[in-house]
Amino acid sequence: MYTRIEHDTMGEVEVPAEAMWGAQTQRSLQNFKIGGERLPRPMIRAMGLVKKAAALTNSDLKQIPQELAHYIVDAAEEVIQGQWDSQFPLVVWQTGSGTQSNMNCNEVIANIANQKLGNPLGAQKPVHPNDHVNRAQSTNDSFPTAIHVAASLQINELLIPAVTQLRNTLDAKAQEFNDIVKIGRTHLQDATPLTLGQEFSGYVSQLDHGLKRLHQALSGLYELPLGGTAVGTGLNAHPDYAEKVAEQLSQLTGLPFVTAPNKFEALAGRDAAVFASGALKTLAASLNKIANDIRWLASGPRCGFGEIRIPENEPGSSIMPGKVNPTQSEAMTMVVAQVLGNDTTINVAGASGNFELNVFMPVIAYNLLQSIQLLGDACNSFNEHCAVGIEPNREKIDYFLHNSLMLVTALNPVIGYENAAKVAKTAYKEGKTLKQVAVELQLVTEEQFDAVVRPENMVSPNVK
Amino acid sequence: MYTRIEHDTMGEVEVPAEAMWGAQTQRSLQNFKIGGERLPRPMIRAMGLVKKAAALTNSDLKQIPQELAHYIVDAAEEVIQGQWDSQFPLVVWQTGSGTQSNMNCNEVIANIANQKLGNPLGAQKPVHPNDHVNRAQSTNDSFPTAIHVAASLQINELLIPAVTQLRNTLDAKAQEFNDIVKIGRTHLQDATPLTLGQEFSGYVSQLDHGLKRLHQALSGLYELPLGGTAVGTGLNAHPDYAEKVAEQLSQLTGLPFVTAPNKFEALAGRDAAVFASGALKTLAASLNKIANDIRWLASGPRCGFGEIRIPENEPGSSIMPGKVNPTQSEAMTMVVAQVLGNDTTINVAGASGNFELNVFMPVIAYNLLQSIQLLGDACNSFNEHCAVGIEPNREKIDYFLHNSLMLVTALNPVIGYENAAKVAKTAYKEGKTLKQVAVELQLVTEEQFDAVVRPENMVSPNVK
Amino acid sequence: MYTRIEHDTMGEVEVPAEAMWGAQTQRSLQNFKIGGERLPRPMIRAMGLVKKAAALTNSDLKQIPQELAHYIVDAAEEVIQGQWDSQFPLVVWQTGSGTQSNMNCNEVIANIANQKLGNPLGAQKPVHPNDHVNRAQSTNDSFPTAIHVAASLQINELLIPAVTQLRNTLDAKAQEFNDIVKIGRTHLQDATPLTLGQEFSGYVSQLDHGLKRLHQALSGLYELPLGGTAVGTGLNAHPDYAEKVAEQLSQLTGLPFVTAPNKFEALAGRDAAVFASGALKTLAASLNKIANDIRWLASGPRCGFGEIRIPENEPGSSIMPGKVNPTQSEAMTMVVAQVLGNDTTINVAGASGNFELNVFMPVIAYNLLQSIQLLGDACNSFNEHCAVGIEPNREKIDYFLHNSLMLVTALNPVIGYENAAKVAKTAYKEGKTLKQVAVELQLVTEEQFDAVVRPENMVSPNVK
Amino acid sequence: MYTRIEHDTMGEVEVPAEAMWGAQTQRSLQNFKIGGERLPRPMIRAMGLVKKAAALTNSDLKQIPQELAHYIVDAAEEVIQGQWDSQFPLVVWQTGSGTQSNMNCNEVIANIANQKLGNPLGAQKPVHPNDHVNRAQSTNDSFPTAIHVAASLQINELLIPAVTQLRNTLDAKAQEFNDIVKIGRTHLQDATPLTLGQEFSGYVSQLDHGLKRLHQALSGLYELPLGGTAVGTGLNAHPDYAEKVAEQLSQLTGLPFVTAPNKFEALAGRDAAVFASGALKTLAASLNKIANDIRWLASGPRCGFGEIRIPENEPGSSIMPGKVNPTQSEAMTMVVAQVLGNDTTINVAGASGNFELNVFMPVIAYNLLQSIQLLGDACNSFNEHCAVGIEPNREKIDYFLHNSLMLVTALNPVIGYENAAKVAKTAYKEGKTLKQVAVELQLVTEEQFDAVVRPENMVSPNVK
Repeated sequence: MYTRIEHDTMGEVEVPAEAMWGAQTQRSLQNFKIGGERLPRPMIRAMGLVKKAAALTNSDLKQIPQELAHYIVDAAEEVIQGQWDSQFPLVVWQTGSGTQSNMNCNEVIANIANQKLGNPLGAQKPVHPNDHVNRAQSTNDSFPTAIHVAASLQINELLIPAVTQLRNTLDAKAQEFNDIVKIGRTHLQDATPLTLGQEFSGYVSQLDHGLKRLHQALSGLYELPLGGTAVGTGLNAHPDYAEKVAEQLSQLTGLPFVTAPNKFEALAGRDAAVFASGALKTLAASLNKIANDIRWLASGPRCGFGEIRIPENEPGSSIMPGKVNPTQSEAMTMVVAQVLGNDTTINVAGASGNFELNVFMPVIAYNLLQSIQLLGDACNSFNEHCAVGIEPNREKIDYFLHNSLMLVTALNPVIGYENAAKVAKTAYKEGKTLKQVAVELQLVTEEQFDAVVRPENMVSPNVK
Repeated sequence: MYTRIEHDTMGEVEVPAEAMWGAQTQRSLQNFKIGGERLPRPMIRAMGLVKKAAALTNSDLKQIPQELAHYIVDAAEEVIQGQWDSQFPLVVWQTGSGTQSNMNCNEVIANIANQKLGNPLGAQKPVHPNDHVNRAQSTNDSFPTAIHVAASLQINELLIPAVTQLRNTLDAKAQEFNDIVKIGRTHLQDATPLTLGQEFSGYVSQLDHGLKRLHQALSGLYELPLGGTAVGTGLNAHPDYAEKVAEQLSQLTGLPFVTAPNKFEALAGRDAAVFASGALKTLAASLNKIANDIRWLASGPRCGFGEIRIPENEPGSSIMPGKVNPTQSEAMTMVVAQVLGNDTTINVAGASGNFELNVFMPVIAYNLLQSIQLLGDACNSFNEHCAVGIEPNREKIDYFLHNSLMLVTALNPVIGYENAAKVAKTAYKEGKTLKQVAVELQLVTEEQFDAVVRPENMVSPNVK
Repeated sequence: MYTRIEHDTMGEVEVPAEAMWGAQTQRSLQNFKIGGERLPRPMIRAMGLVKKAAALTNSDLKQIPQELAHYIVDAAEEVIQGQWDSQFPLVVWQTGSGTQSNMNCNEVIANIANQKLGNPLGAQKPVHPNDHVNRAQSTNDSFPTAIHVAASLQINELLIPAVTQLRNTLDAKAQEFNDIVKIGRTHLQDATPLTLGQEFSGYVSQLDHGLKRLHQALSGLYELPLGGTAVGTGLNAHPDYAEKVAEQLSQLTGLPFVTAPNKFEALAGRDAAVFASGALKTLAASLNKIANDIRWLASGPRCGFGEIRIPENEPGSSIMPGKVNPTQSEAMTMVVAQVLGNDTTINVAGASGNFELNVFMPVIAYNLLQSIQLLGDACNSFNEHCAVGIEPNREKIDYFLHNSLMLVTALNPVIGYENAAKVAKTAYKEGKTLKQVAVELQLVTEEQFDAVVRPENMVSPNVK
Repeated sequence: MYTRIEHDTMGEVEVPAEAMWGAQTQRSLQNFKIGGERLPRPMIRAMGLVKKAAALTNSDLKQIPQELAHYIVDAAEEVIQGQWDSQFPLVVWQTGSGTQSNMNCNEVIANIANQKLGNPLGAQKPVHPNDHVNRAQSTNDSFPTAIHVAASLQINELLIPAVTQLRNTLDAKAQEFNDIVKIGRTHLQDATPLTLGQEFSGYVSQLDHGLKRLHQALSGLYELPLGGTAVGTGLNAHPDYAEKVAEQLSQLTGLPFVTAPNKFEALAGRDAAVFASGALKTLAASLNKIANDIRWLASGPRCGFGEIRIPENEPGSSIMPGKVNPTQSEAMTMVVAQVLGNDTTINVAGASGNFELNVFMPVIAYNLLQSIQLLGDACNSFNEHCAVGIEPNREKIDYFLHNSLMLVTALNPVIGYENAAKVAKTAYKEGKTLKQVAVELQLVTEEQFDAVVRPENMVSPNVK
């Protein structure tokens, strides 16, 4: 591999000749050969946004020359767009402040800008990675700002639309299934009836609440640490910088970012991320319920509940028709398990700040963004490949409903509690239907039974 | 032990003669000899509130005779007040719907009422535990309602005041310490200065955000399942019951309870509790940072950071003065560890509903209420026995500040970056102060040094 | 309340007149009003054992007079037996080393001994709580020793017998059900058959492995920190003390305790407890599978799997026979959720030692011992009230087995794959049995079908 | 993109023309667009090993023609060696049994073999992915077998050597630092002395125990599910297959694999993985203690503990010498946070089997292997870039040691407890050393003080 020589305060470093990164990135590559998990794309984009906003603000505040700012903004925009993702090779398991990824971004942007200005890679002029790109910033405020920006964008652009779409699909199903009366189940045991639509409406309501919780969590993520610089005091920043750079980020993204009211918290605590993970794990709990219900309701084809049919997306069995493995539910519940574990990681990391800094930032970024990505993608996948195709199996639903013993309660007013209990006990013991037994015991006629035992009258408050 | 005989649908049960509970409670005692963790007092109080509200509503809706309602209300009030706690002997590890605790409450209230009406224990008349006390309820809606009521009351009455008080103490300290400039620390390494007041202001801000998050979580807990009855349909309830009983609970508690918009979710999902635990674990993360900072800052007396002094509450060492173990921090961080674990339990339990019910309710109640209680109590204890007595150790703070090498940056404008670096390196190598070296190297006079190196100018945005 | 005055190095303290504890316990009561969770009985017993073993060893090594040792041993024995549990009022949320509970134990034992010697409470002579009862100990080594002793005893005396008993019950069922061929289920979908006995044999094997893991975890718990004193060096202890006191504890308990090879680890790390919790959470995972399978297999009575019947321990429904809520499974899975959360707590606490001490010891003790107790009790309860009474529902099992489409594979050799697939597809589409269709299509006779389609031939390796 | 058409039982699928995979892999790519986390290299290698061992065993048992077996073995070997990693494009979030990754492997191996035999991609002959490559296997037994094989190899080849190397480095440091007496710290407060070597010996002992626990966990991973086929019965396998294929895998890897004694557990439970994660999280807890101690001991350079120096691997500050951020500790503690979260995920996933299968296998594989990889890599990185370069800062150590007040206890025998306490209290109050005060108070001479107060005599059991 051809290399070029770069310098930093510790001396010379060999960098691959074509690399857009510089000495500090290279040192990190060498010092942290741990796993292969890179900071995800949304973090690169967000770091680009931070650099762009900082350059615009510094230019406005006359902290860097307008022309250099222009080149930095253009270069940052390319990073934002994803043109240079391959130049962000660092793994999550580096310095806990994310310093090396922040420097990676500074180095890449400086090199892009300087190249456009006709200078070779590594020139560090006229655009200097520290003096210009990182101007009025420290990793300690810019990296957590990037976390907030990345998570906010991903929640708004990926997760909320995905949850909303799934919610809408389930809501349409709830409407569609509104008249399908089925047996209810509590403790996994047969219970009084409800409609399939009512059952699905519960899922819709869970997701509605989940969306509300995401918005509650976003309010904390919208507060940005930028402007706190190294320890929260704002040393080396202009007094107007913090507020203006947040406004800039708000304009660039369309999200209501504001500067954090207290920068000492903003650097040393990652509580907004911890709470956001709290909203994500709650959403995961909801999705677990939904995905589990659907796979159990679809169990069979012959020896399970089988009250619904789900789409067959891949061969289940080469010979047996109807064996449709609930693979979308399985992917979803695996995602849930991951999100619950990520939450533990974020809790431990978020609780571990000391003094003026929390040095678990890359691992927080990695887990938070993974949770968002997985939940968003899984909702989309589950929606498209499962939820939209859910169909009721009316025969099975009816069979269970009318075979159930719970309906006997409807006979109470007609034949009395004692006789009703006798009907149920006989039916259970002899493996017969309530109707068979009730008629055999000459307590009611078939017609009477059908007139009285109407499950559709049992699915709403009915006492007067 | 003297016993009396009670009956239920399964036959006879021997109950201790003086017990206010009945057959179903007794069966649970015999069938679930697991651990010793009873449902906590706030749950008993909340179940009492549910029964009282239900009786008042049922009376209004003419579902039970007014006189019986009157006796139920009086009996429930005694349960609410804590007069009958000894009559709630059941453990958490019972049926997952909490049925047996719900029946325990029904049986106790019926017996109190019937006793007042001159009937013996176990008479079940004129007040019947099911027909009257449990009227228009199922465990499936009344038990989760009690969880929401109990958690809402505990958060409002215990936790929010406790956090607020600690926040206020720390805020007063932040004001008091506002002019005490000290060395900052990032990566545990010496960094640029800030004031001790700024450091404490970060804690205040964390708790302010924590309070906001508790209110966000409360909004979900205020939605009550009551009225869904067995499977969410409201079967056997009056159409107006759900709304009215929530209003009643709101009046009884002064909290803005409303009926849950969707009862199918309300019975089968426990997401509001999962999210509330998310707010609690975030608060725990904040408190961990605060308690840790304080114990590290108080470390010593001679061989640690020692920048603050904390109250000495118990003998640290019989012979060594100044050895003050940070026991309140230790209690707090143990509470944090517990809350993080409780959060895992609640996540697993909350994600595990099936069909029309979640059968992990007692374990959710137990963990959620334990987290609230421990956080509230620990905040009070930490406030009273530690935070209020925190004092700065100005000698140590000054020693570190002026001994630090980070201040050298202030010399840059006067002697140039190169010379400044030389001063720092020499000081580090030779174990001297910056001032000593700068004067020895004849770069500045003592007076000049003191005029220029003023840490108090480094604690705010300073760029023009 | 009558009080007496006690003194410690910080001055006077009012102690309840009849309390067996002294000044330090009293201070803790006042300083730590957090929750109500006391150190559990097994810890009190274990602290008593530590004190007894220390007194015997100190006497042998001539560190304390033989007569005083005799009185300490007698008093400790009473503590071990549980006569003085009410005198251990301290909560878990105290100093993280457990100092106050250790002093509580020293104070109680000294008072018991001195009372027998005719001295008043608080006399501190002739037996002094520190100089004699705590001789050659520090909380820092004696408290973690008590954790190891308590956990080892509880695992050996409660948990292993409970798991073994459940395992034996399930093994008997596995034998009993060995010839009952049933449909298998993977992905919750119908699959090839196995016997009900084979299904249960999997549970037995899980518990066998669980028992092995408990023994693996015990090997670490058997290493005792005692003898490390304050920081691990053994300062103020006799060189032979560590080894001899471990032998003594081994004799007193019958368990193979040894002195930890490295006392610095033994004080500052709680890894053996973390690993023991790892064995407990694995056992919990196994029990979750078992309890879940059993409640799903028992679901119904009409609208679920219903392949087994479980005992009816409490009224499920007043009118509907056969509605047997799987309450023992529910208690078990709630215990599992608790153990998984406790594991998180123990992980966080165990990872948080600093320098020469881990100050999360009471919370580790509390969670570890709770996990052991709950798993042990839940196994006993599940065994007695559920497992022993499990019965197959042969009609349901047969119905599913013969109704299933998976058996069609047995026809392949006779009618060819294509025809077999056609049979299955037609049966699925028309809701018929394989036999019906195969005969209707004139591919086989009824007799041929019965001769070939024999599920009992599909439950073992069958290829030659 | 050029494509070819492949067929499976559901119809036609367009597959990229050059892809070595087939229809089922392609369907999974389309149906599971979730995240980007692929199954890691060790799983691909392990799947290759399973296919190789199966082909060899099937050939021996005359289940597939010897020549086809030969080609399968060669193709599998290339997969094992990593030549075809790019042909395994599937993500973790797929069917929970890993069916699609198993089919991916079958398809790739069949295509490699068939290509060598001169047939085009997708020919499926003469080597058929199901009939030959997957012979006598089901995903349900081969995928969990691959998990066991992958984890066992990674623990043996990566993790154990990495931990051992770090252990050896720390052990060398412990020897080297054996005579360096330093102040001990409990509760973060100054305590009695120990040697720096003793402190490090505690770390060594933690890792020694960690290694033992890894071996304990391996014993469970060595039991292989292979041979259970679809539901554990071994249907469609030769009676000798299970045992022989485990022997084959043992020969191929050099690890003592055996066939699992109970295949029903082996398919439906993933307890061995749960327990292995228990060993990994315990190791993580140990490493957290070590990495934390080292960064706190290295804190400073001026305003922290500063008792050791760690290597400077990257620029800490451009101007301030001695600011060495403990980045390797930070990477390590982030890895620990990840491993604790992965453990939660694995617990939830492992506890969630139903009937004859656990459908959380890919997520278990992903987390278990990530934990192993990260711990192994982090140990190597920490060892190379931090541990080997740790140096004591003898001046700081001595300063603290002799400045501490704890040494006063050594004066007790000479001047009495009362006088010793007076010395300490005066020294603390007036900010002097013990020696200064003791001499000033004329209790001892300087010479006497030096003769008596010898910390080196306080680092071992000293009572006679």
